[in-house]
Amino acid sequence: MFKFFKVITKKNWMASYMFVVMLLVSALANAEVKYVFFFLGDGMSFSQIQTTEAAMASWYAKSVGMPMGPGKGDLNADYLLNPNNRLYMTQLPVQGVQTTYDAYSLNTDSASAGTAFASGIKTLSGVINMDASKKQSYKSIGELAHERGMKVGVMTSVSLDHATPASYYASTPSRGYYNYIGTQLAQSNYEFFGGGGFLSPTKPETTGDTSNDVNALLVKNGYTVLNDRQSILSLKNTPKAKVVAINPWLQDASATPYNIDKINYDQNNKNLSLAEMTDVAIANLEGLDLQDGGKGFFLMVEGGKIDWACHANDAVAAMGDIIDFDNAVGRALAFYNRHPNETLIVVTGDHETGGMSVGHATTAYKAYYDKLFGQRTSFQYFTASIWPDFKKKYATGYDPSQPDNLAKNQEMLTLMQNVFGLDWNSLNDDQKKKLEDAFDKSMSGKNNNSDAANKLLYGGYEPITVTITHILNEQAGIGWTSYSHTGQPVPVYAIGKESERFAGFYDNTDIAKQLAKALGISNPLPVKKENKI
Amino acid sequence: MFKFFKVITKKNWMASYMFVVMLLVSALANAEVKYVFFFLGDGMSFSQIQTTEAAMASWYAKSVGMPMGPGKGDLNADYLLNPNNRLYMTQLPVQGVQTTYDAYSLNTDSASAGTAFASGIKTLSGVINMDASKKQSYKSIGELAHERGMKVGVMTSVSLDHATPASYYASTPSRGYYNYIGTQLAQSNYEFFGGGGFLSPTKPETTGDTSNDVNALLVKNGYTVLNDRQSILSLKNTPKAKVVAINPWLQDASATPYNIDKINYDQNNKNLSLAEMTDVAIANLEGLDLQDGGKGFFLMVEGGKIDWACHANDAVAAMGDIIDFDNAVGRALAFYNRHPNETLIVVTGDHETGGMSVGHATTAYKAYYDKLFGQRTSFQYFTASIWPDFKKKYATGYDPSQPDNLAKNQEMLTLMQNVFGLDWNSLNDDQKKKLEDAFDKSMSGKNNNSDAANKLLYGGYEPITVTITHILNEQAGIGWTSYSHTGQPVPVYAIGKESERFAGFYDNTDIAKQLAKALGISNPLPVKKENKI
Repeated sequence: MFKFFKVITKKNWMASYMFVVMLLVSALANAEVKYVFFFLGDGMSFSQIQTTEAAMASWYAKSVGMPMGPGKGDLNADYLLNPNNRLYMTQLPVQGVQTTYDAYSLNTDSASAGTAFASGIKTLSGVINMDASKKQSYKSIGELAHERGMKVGVMTSVSLDHATPASYYASTPSRGYYNYIGTQLAQSNYEFFGGGGFLSPTKPETTGDTSNDVNALLVKNGYTVLNDRQSILSLKNTPKAKVVAINPWLQDASATPYNIDKINYDQNNKNLSLAEMTDVAIANLEGLDLQDGGKGFFLMVEGGKIDWACHANDAVAAMGDIIDFDNAVGRALAFYNRHPNETLIVVTGDHETGGMSVGHATTAYKAYYDKLFGQRTSFQYFTASIWPDFKKKYATGYDPSQPDNLAKNQEMLTLMQNVFGLDWNSLNDDQKKKLEDAFDKSMSGKNNNSDAANKLLYGGYEPITVTITHILNEQAGIGWTSYSHTGQPVPVYAIGKESERFAGFYDNTDIAKQLAKALGISNPLPVKKENKI
Repeated sequence: MFKFFKVITKKNWMASYMFVVMLLVSALANAEVKYVFFFLGDGMSFSQIQTTEAAMASWYAKSVGMPMGPGKGDLNADYLLNPNNRLYMTQLPVQGVQTTYDAYSLNTDSASAGTAFASGIKTLSGVINMDASKKQSYKSIGELAHERGMKVGVMTSVSLDHATPASYYASTPSRGYYNYIGTQLAQSNYEFFGGGGFLSPTKPETTGDTSNDVNALLVKNGYTVLNDRQSILSLKNTPKAKVVAINPWLQDASATPYNIDKINYDQNNKNLSLAEMTDVAIANLEGLDLQDGGKGFFLMVEGGKIDWACHANDAVAAMGDIIDFDNAVGRALAFYNRHPNETLIVVTGDHETGGMSVGHATTAYKAYYDKLFGQRTSFQYFTASIWPDFKKKYATGYDPSQPDNLAKNQEMLTLMQNVFGLDWNSLNDDQKKKLEDAFDKSMSGKNNNSDAANKLLYGGYEPITVTITHILNEQAGIGWTSYSHTGQPVPVYAIGKESERFAGFYDNTDIAKQLAKALGISNPLPVKKENKI
C-alpha cells in the first residue's frame, strides 16, 4: 500500500492560523531574523509539486469514495483548494518565482544553482562558490551566518559532499572533487551535518582532487560521527557541539533511501526520514544556541533525491521524497509557531528535472492518478535489488529476435503488477511494444531500435525499469521529456520575519542576497574569500 | 529570416523607470482603478515564456556574435538578467501564481478557466459563466464593469465567439453554442470587439444552439462592423460607440493569422497585429470615455493562438504569438505611463498547453535555439497552404512499403530546409525514421506503426508537419508531452494601482474576485444573473 499518501492526507495543518500569526507579527519590525530555514527541493518545480498535490487529493478521493463531477471527474477542486489538504510549502503566505539559468547555460546544474543560493553569483555548471573563471572563491551564506555567531546546520538526503550541501560550506572549481569537499566539511566547524555519507572520504575522486582522510579530519576537528537511529535521535535531548549524523541505510551513491523504499523496506524502522532528521537538527541547533550565544541558527535542508527520481522519470519516487521533504518543512513550521517573531522559512527548488508535465498525450484532458498507487519501490530499488535476480534466472539462452518475450514470461508480468501496479492487460499496442523492446534490451543488451532511439527511450537507465515508469506515469497522465535538468523557472514559498523579500519574480542569485539582508549582513553579496586549493 | 526576434530585441523599455513610477504612485491610495487591462495568453505558462525569452536572447547573441562562456555557452545570463532584454510581462513588478484546475478536472479548458477569471467560480470544462450543474448563470467582470459605466472592450486573436472572449460577455452551458454566444455578443452593448470573426453567425453550430443572424443583430443593436486595416486604424482618431473590428485575413476557424505568418505572408501589410489592434482598442475606449462618462474602461486581450500552436507542438509559432501578445502588453504599458495613478494591468495564462519543457533528452544540458531561426511558417500555414500542392504532385503511385521515401525525395528535403530550417543531414537515425514514418502516413495514410503509436506521435495533426516541429524543437532543446492542456500552475504578472492584489499563490477564481475589488465592486463575486437560454 502506498502509505505516505495516507499519512499526509490525515494531517490537518492550521493554515489560516499561520496567516493570522504572520499578520500579527509582521508589524513587529525589530532586528534581523534569528532563525533561518532554507529548504531546497532538488529538481523540484511547479509540475513536481502540482502532481504531488493532485496525487494526494486522488489518494484521499479513492480512500473515502469522494464523489466527483460529471464527465471527467479526476479531481475535486473544493478539496484541493482547502490548504489543509495540500503540502505545507504551498500554504506559505509569500510566493515568488526565480529564474534558474546559470552564467552561460539555460539549464543549470545543482552546483551553479547552489552557488547562486549560497554566495549570490552566477557561475558555470559544476563549479561551487567560485566565479566562472574558477579563479575567485566567495563566502557562502552558511559561512557568513557562522561568522555572525549563528549555529549552522547542513542537511541532505543525498551524500553530505554533494553539490547542494557543499555550496553551504565549500568552494571548489569542480563539484567532483569529493575528497576536497569532504575536507572542507571537516574544517567548517559547523555544528550539524545530517543525511547521507561521503563519496570519497579517503582518496581523490578524480585528478585535481585532494587525498585526505576525511574521517580522521572530522575526529581531529572535534566532530562526533553518528550513524544509528537511536544515537542520532538522542541529540534531541543531548545536543552535541559538532556532529555528523549519517543515516544507517545508504542506498545509492552514499545517499539515504528513497522515502517509498524506506516505508516499504525498513520494517524495523532503523532509519530516519528527512523530516525526522530535521527535528533532530532543529533540537540540536536550538539546544546549542540556548547554551551558548543566543545568536540563533541557519539550517539548510535539501531533498536531494527528488532530483534523482526525476532524472530517472519515476514520478512516484519523486512524490514520495517531496512528501518527506514537505514534512520536514512542517517540522520547521512547528518551530516557527514557537518563535514566530524571529523565524524565516524559505522553500524552493534549484531547477526542474525531467521536463515533467501535468498531462500526457495518451490521457489528453483526463488524469488517472490512482494508477500510481500500486507502485511499491523506487526505480532504484527495483533495478538494484529486484531485477538482477530475475535477470539471472532467465538470461541464459535469451533470444531477443523472438517475439513476445515479455508477454510470454508470466513471472515478469507478475513482477510488473506486484512492484509497480502495472497491468499488462491495460496496455495499448504501442506500450506493449515499448516494453517488449526494453525487456529485450535489458535481458540481452540488444533490440531492434537504433542507438539514437534507445538513447531517447532509456537515457542511461535500465531499459525495462525506465520504460515501466514511463508507461505507468503516462497512464496516470504525467509526461517526461528529458533525463536532465530543464530551464523552467521555479517557485519560492516563504513565511515569517522578512519573508516579503521573497515575493516577486527574480533570479536565483537574489535569494542569497535577500537571505543576507534578512540576516542583517551589512556587506552586500558576493563576499570574496581566499581559495583553499 | 525570423523577423520578430529582431524587432523585439531592438526595444529598450525602461523597466527601472516603471518601478520608480510604481513606488511613487502606490502611496496615493484613493478610489478604485479607472483603467483595467486583463491580458490572457491562452495556453501560456512558465515554459512558453522562458523559451521565448531564451530564444530572444539567443537571437540577439547570434546577431551580434555575443561571446558565450566555456563549455556550454548557450546563454549569456548577464544579457537575460537585464529586464530591457526580456518580455514586457516578466518586467512587471508584481508576480503571482495561480492554480488552473476546474471543478472536477486537473486539466481545465479555456471555458472553465475563462469562467474562473470572469465570474469567479469553478465549473466544468466547456461551460461558460454557469455553475457545474449548468443551471445558474453568473455575471462576468465585463458585465459588472459595464454596469458601472465603464467602457468595455474584448479582444482576441481567435474568433470573437471563442471560449475566452465569450467569458466576458456570455453565459452558456456549452462553449460550442457559437451562434448563441455570437447573439449575446451582439446584445452586450459593449463598446469594442476586436480580433477574428464569428464561427456560426447565421445557423446553429450544434443541437441546442440558437439560429439567429448575428450580423443582422449587430446592425440592429447599433454596431459598426469593420474589416479592413485602414478603417480599423481610423478608430484611433474617430472612436465609434459600438464597433466590431475584424482582421481581414482569417486564417483558420475565423482566427487571425499566426504572427509568424503575418510577418512572412502579409507583404502589403493589410492586416493588424494583436499589438496594433490593442492600440486601436485603447484609443477607441479612451476616446469614448473622454466624450462620455469618464468612468474609465475595462479591456480584455487574449492571445488565443499561443494555445493552438502549443496544441500542435509548434514552439516557433507559439513564440511568435507570445511576442505579439507581449507587444500588446507593451501598448498597455505606454497607456499606463500616461495614467499611472489610475491604471491596473494584469497578465496571465489560462493553463499550460502541450506539456512543453525547457529542455529535451536529445540535447540534455545544452540548448541550441539558433536551430529555430530557420522556421518561416506556422505548422498551420504549412499544412494548409504548402503541403497540399506537394502531396498532389507525389501522391500517385506512392508506396509506403518502400524504404527511404523521404530521403529519396529531394523536393521534400528542400522544403523542410527552406520552410523549417530542418537539415536532413543534421538528423540522427531515430529522427530520420520518425520523419520517414510520418511522410508515409501523410502521403498514403499508412505506415508500419500501430494505431496507438501514431496517435501518440501525431495527435490529430498532419503527421509530417507535427513530426517536423517535434524534431526541430527537440534539436533546439524543447520538448512536448501532450496535444492537450496540462494542469501546471500559471504565472500572473501585474503593475499599477491595486496590483499588489495579484501577488502570492492562489486560485484562478481569485483573479475575478480581486479584479472586482480593484474595480470597487462592493458585492462579492460570484454575482448571479438570469439565464438567457
